[in-house]
Amino acid sequence: MASPMKIVVVGGVAAGPKAAARARRCDPTAEITLFEQGEFVSYAGCGLPFFISGAIPDIKELLATPVGVVRDAGFFKNVKGFDLRTGKRVTAIERGKKQVQVTDVKTGEVETAPYDRLVLATGARPVRPPIEGIDLGNIFPLQTPKHALEIREAIERDKVKKAVLIGAGWIGLEVTEALVHRGIEVTLVEALDFVAPNLLDFEIAALLSRHLTEKGVAVRTQERAARFIGNSEGKVKKVVTDKGEYDADLVLIAIGVRPNVDLAREAGLELGQTGAIKVDDYLRTSDPDIYAGGDCIESKHLLTGKPAFVSSGQLANIHGRIIGTNLTGGQETFKGFVGTSIAKVFDFSVGAAGLKESVARDLGFDVETALVPGPDHAHYYPQSGVVGLKMVADRKTRRLLGVQVVGPGDGSKRIDVAATAITLGATLDTMSQLNLAYSPPFSSALDNLLVAANVMLNKLEGRAPSVTPMAVQEMTEQGQDFMLLDVRTPQEFNEIRLKNPNTFFMPLGRLREKAPEFPKDKTIIPFCKLSLRGYEAVKILEGLGFKDVKFMDGGVVQWPYELEKPQ
Amino acid sequence: MASPMKIVVVGGVAAGPKAAARARRCDPTAEITLFEQGEFVSYAGCGLPFFISGAIPDIKELLATPVGVVRDAGFFKNVKGFDLRTGKRVTAIERGKKQVQVTDVKTGEVETAPYDRLVLATGARPVRPPIEGIDLGNIFPLQTPKHALEIREAIERDKVKKAVLIGAGWIGLEVTEALVHRGIEVTLVEALDFVAPNLLDFEIAALLSRHLTEKGVAVRTQERAARFIGNSEGKVKKVVTDKGEYDADLVLIAIGVRPNVDLAREAGLELGQTGAIKVDDYLRTSDPDIYAGGDCIESKHLLTGKPAFVSSGQLANIHGRIIGTNLTGGQETFKGFVGTSIAKVFDFSVGAAGLKESVARDLGFDVETALVPGPDHAHYYPQSGVVGLKMVADRKTRRLLGVQVVGPGDGSKRIDVAATAITLGATLDTMSQLNLAYSPPFSSALDNLLVAANVMLNKLEGRAPSVTPMAVQEMTEQGQDFMLLDVRTPQEFNEIRLKNPNTFFMPLGRLREKAPEFPKDKTIIPFCKLSLRGYEAVKILEGLGFKDVKFMDGGVVQWPYELEKPQ
Repeated sequence: MASPMKIVVVGGVAAGPKAAARARRCDPTAEITLFEQGEFVSYAGCGLPFFISGAIPDIKELLATPVGVVRDAGFFKNVKGFDLRTGKRVTAIERGKKQVQVTDVKTGEVETAPYDRLVLATGARPVRPPIEGIDLGNIFPLQTPKHALEIREAIERDKVKKAVLIGAGWIGLEVTEALVHRGIEVTLVEALDFVAPNLLDFEIAALLSRHLTEKGVAVRTQERAARFIGNSEGKVKKVVTDKGEYDADLVLIAIGVRPNVDLAREAGLELGQTGAIKVDDYLRTSDPDIYAGGDCIESKHLLTGKPAFVSSGQLANIHGRIIGTNLTGGQETFKGFVGTSIAKVFDFSVGAAGLKESVARDLGFDVETALVPGPDHAHYYPQSGVVGLKMVADRKTRRLLGVQVVGPGDGSKRIDVAATAITLGATLDTMSQLNLAYSPPFSSALDNLLVAANVMLNKLEGRAPSVTPMAVQEMTEQGQDFMLLDVRTPQEFNEIRLKNPNTFFMPLGRLREKAPEFPKDKTIIPFCKLSLRGYEAVKILEGLGFKDVKFMDGGVVQWPYELEKPQ
Repeated sequence: MASPMKIVVVGGVAAGPKAAARARRCDPTAEITLFEQGEFVSYAGCGLPFFISGAIPDIKELLATPVGVVRDAGFFKNVKGFDLRTGKRVTAIERGKKQVQVTDVKTGEVETAPYDRLVLATGARPVRPPIEGIDLGNIFPLQTPKHALEIREAIERDKVKKAVLIGAGWIGLEVTEALVHRGIEVTLVEALDFVAPNLLDFEIAALLSRHLTEKGVAVRTQERAARFIGNSEGKVKKVVTDKGEYDADLVLIAIGVRPNVDLAREAGLELGQTGAIKVDDYLRTSDPDIYAGGDCIESKHLLTGKPAFVSSGQLANIHGRIIGTNLTGGQETFKGFVGTSIAKVFDFSVGAAGLKESVARDLGFDVETALVPGPDHAHYYPQSGVVGLKMVADRKTRRLLGVQVVGPGDGSKRIDVAATAITLGATLDTMSQLNLAYSPPFSSALDNLLVAANVMLNKLEGRAPSVTPMAVQEMTEQGQDFMLLDVRTPQEFNEIRLKNPNTFFMPLGRLREKAPEFPKDKTIIPFCKLSLRGYEAVKILEGLGFKDVKFMDGGVVQWPYELEKPQ
């Protein structure tokens, strides 16, 4: 009988423990040891902002299973059946000897551990910009429970009143909400053009920005932190940017993460173009006895077929299971990801699956888009909320490329359906007929995604000439003469309107009667609250002989510029 | 120039108006007339139970667009651009002359209307059982706003205290909730073995039944209404079944619908084996100038490739759009449906997509199933609710065949993702890697569907020997000797337990230590709250040399038989 396989796992957050537990289930005899340099293991990193907000009162809940069992060494030994050793940093891989060097974080003592198979799940670390004053107190990243505890402690100890958050990605946005809930005044500084710039297109981000502003957040885009100024205690008191300066008792830096690849690089393992560890479809590195997964590797994007670096707790878990299978003789492949993510930001759900428009264009797709907001369930059933939605597809193949959502309605369902459809190569034709579950508390007879697919198909077939709100804004700024035709009801018009000098009001029900008085030579751009009546207005005007008529995508609900309330 | 095409549409609820409106948008010159025999058009039939409950105060909301515009003849003429004529019953199709006979419902006056293309959207009608006393007052079906208004009127006028609902499909269940909300005592009578028998498998239906009972509903399955007894006013006062009798001031009959095909049959159009109108993929009947859609046709089921009769407001809308396209020269095909449906029943969402187990077996699939309950979002984030879930797949092709959900958690998202995956032919391998949107307020790192797919893959690979709760119950009833091993925590065990004499309690954390004392020759069936710890117990016991160990699917949460609370 062969001696038991020795498996060593480096990293104890998500992919590592998952790989170890799965390997144990697949091979009851393997000797499995997991080394983690920190003190916390298998924690729910994505829950940290909610611990800061207070929604999760005790950090232990992020360290426990659903039934309240804390995941410590005893748990892993007794339940999962492998050895967990915390406070142990793997400092070198000696591939020739098939062993790793392990250094005790406290004592500095070094030991070696032999392996037959090695798993690297070293994760990623927050980018720390080399800015003057970065070492001051109360400037934090947010990655581990330790950071979250420190942030909560600082808030209470120093009675934090003002905070500056640098970086408006999901973490920055979730912490923004957390701090506002704690009564802290937040300035959100983002170097790029709009919030969540790597995740969203402008017009979706603009609605999120408006919501942040309504919640009292000072949103500062296209602005870069330049230096931090401290007080006499060595704690931050001011953030200086290239455009201004802001008082701050606390600063969060959330400008992204970089994969931890030092160990892999020094061992001579191949890195990819993204800088993350390169793996094959089996999640094997360039050394066939070494696997890697989670935030330290690059993953294949299903729509581009190319490797990309993405930090994702979900993918880390998927990777971990595949590695556990393959370590012990299995042959499972990782098929790739589609760039799905979501965040709750105050009352809004904001998310994306697939490619956003700008990325799809850069990749050479023949892009069509639509903005199609709608209620998340039957409008007549109580508590329906609007989901703002952008759909992106390829005109040539008719394939769905991406969906983004923003708004108070249930966007999470639409993102998950879109992610599934994109993964499976759905065309717009398929999307327009998806047999989704209809009942008034859960959806409209035609779900938002079906309506959006229909709008897209109309555009592809040339039935629905349209312009984007960005184009309308540009025409306005250029002083072009056109009629921006609001076809909503008088009641809607009295509640809220676009701030645009070209607006002309005419309810849809009176359009057939009144349109003959409209100038025949002007571009007419009808719009409504959502999109449908704008489109119907186009059809009515076309029927009446008007030649230059296009509806504006997304209506009032997805107008990304200023709105005004009469009086 | 050719004269404009004449389009006649029969039926004004869902498919009809949609076809007419779409045809108008595709062909601005066509002359389009829609005949509807009733007074209400384009109403939200699926919203009627919520009008009865009072959640929707005014019936007009079910007749109005999202911005409150009532869909009447003026609306259809001005906005949608076609003629709507209510109170007009189409009584014959003269295919040779290409005209229909139209009878005025009130005056009996007959006119003819010529057509180039005809659309049949005649819908379905509730089955009315030929039972003694069926004509008594306060016995209602529920299909149109008229019925809903009559039911609400009866409740108020006759101060209804007790109601009997016959038929426990979605409509019966939704109205059950509606009446209970109004303080009415409800007896729900279902002839088949369990509630929602055409939609759910037993073990999902059992959890729904328990919930109904907890809400005070008297659930009577395997029981048939035999006759109705009236009072002196000619109104129902008692329902007599084959097993008992119940006082009732009001009776709802919801035992299914049949397609309205008289018009089609008399015109010599082909009907399918289901009795509904047969159409091709373009939704054309056996007469190429006549299209049909909505509840009067049979639709292709994507998983069987065979036509089936299904009543669905969603499909009616999809059909309508396709017909509108094809009427006016388009070539769109209907790809089929996957049997998706959902209902809100008190605090539970209950739904299904694809094939349920019993149907999949009858169709000859090599069926594997799993019961995999789980929290609908990260367990540590507030307000997570459990989704009970059953997954069905084909062992041979590894294709996902069906998913059912039941419970307080967000099942609707999982059903829609499953419906999308089934439509696109997803395998379990794909399901286990779906890149869904993860954030604690919306899901766990691995969504319920991914966890379920992993359990299914473990079963397919022989890694996860398991038994169903039904098998456990049968073994118990047969007096077999086995150990039903509860591996939960003491706290969980003190809250609620299975009522089963074979139960033995041993927390998972102590299993490695204590198991050596277990008898080696007994079948051991570990289980926990959900499923994972039961599976882990199997792995631990296998590792310790036990040979006959299987975990019980679904744990305590999906145990479909009696539970008990200690003390």
